[in-house]
Amino acid sequence: MYKAIDHTGIAVADIDDSLPFYRDVLGLPLVHRETVADQGVDAALLDIGDGHLELIAPLGPETGVAKFLAKHGPGLHHIAYRVDDIDATLASLSAAGVRLIDQQPRIGIRGSRVAFLHPSAADGVLTEIVEHAGHP
Amino acid sequence: MYKAIDHTGIAVADIDDSLPFYRDVLGLPLVHRETVADQGVDAALLDIGDGHLELIAPLGPETGVAKFLAKHGPGLHHIAYRVDDIDATLASLSAAGVRLIDQQPRIGIRGSRVAFLHPSAADGVLTEIVEHAGHP
Repeated sequence: MYKAIDHTGIAVADIDDSLPFYRDVLGLPLVHRETVADQGVDAALLDIGDGHLELIAPLGPETGVAKFLAKHGPGLHHIAYRVDDIDATLASLSAAGVRLIDQQPRIGIRGSRVAFLHPSAADGVLTEIVEHAGHP
Repeated sequence: MYKAIDHTGIAVADIDDSLPFYRDVLGLPLVHRETVADQGVDAALLDIGDGHLELIAPLGPETGVAKFLAKHGPGLHHIAYRVDDIDATLASLSAAGVRLIDQQPRIGIRGSRVAFLHPSAADGVLTEIVEHAGHP
């Protein structure tokens, strides 16, 4: 059911300040940029293997990522697992009693369908599941 | 040079307390357990896709992971990228002026060769590179 680590999300103050390391030093291809207003972030995807890194920077001081940065500074923010069927996965998690932030999927970056589990369900890790657009 | 997200490391208080979520609810295969004395951790690997999760729990109160837990609580601890040639990668990073924790590789879990970059080089992210045992 869980196919891969789809991405790891890294909270940064400013994406353009972070690209010199990830794109230029590590050489990871920058494949997508998007403002995801629903999540209050400016986001960039850099491919690595079958997955990617997602750099996220806050759109404003009241966003979740701005609060994360104020509390923790930049760093690892969340992990996302790729699934084929997010509805079935959410149903399975609910049936197992896992605490969810999103009871239903919402639209994420690049038209994906995403849902977040509560960090308390996963050893403090903000955990996302992702069904890519175009999957059956 | 950077082939994949090899693993994401999650700091936990006790691995056996975390397995009911990762192994049983998510259903990820537990493929390896090891005490890595050099890093002061008890570790478990759970496969997902081409990579894995690495649960790490401290061996004692003076270890780095114990200090991480005391400061942050459980959660995302580090990210590791798989490389084919860790010596060449370290040389390239050094040439680019990247601040390293390990100037030379050391032996990590399952006989891999690993090295850590300093978090200050990577937006606060403790970053590891890994060359698996058996790679050319």
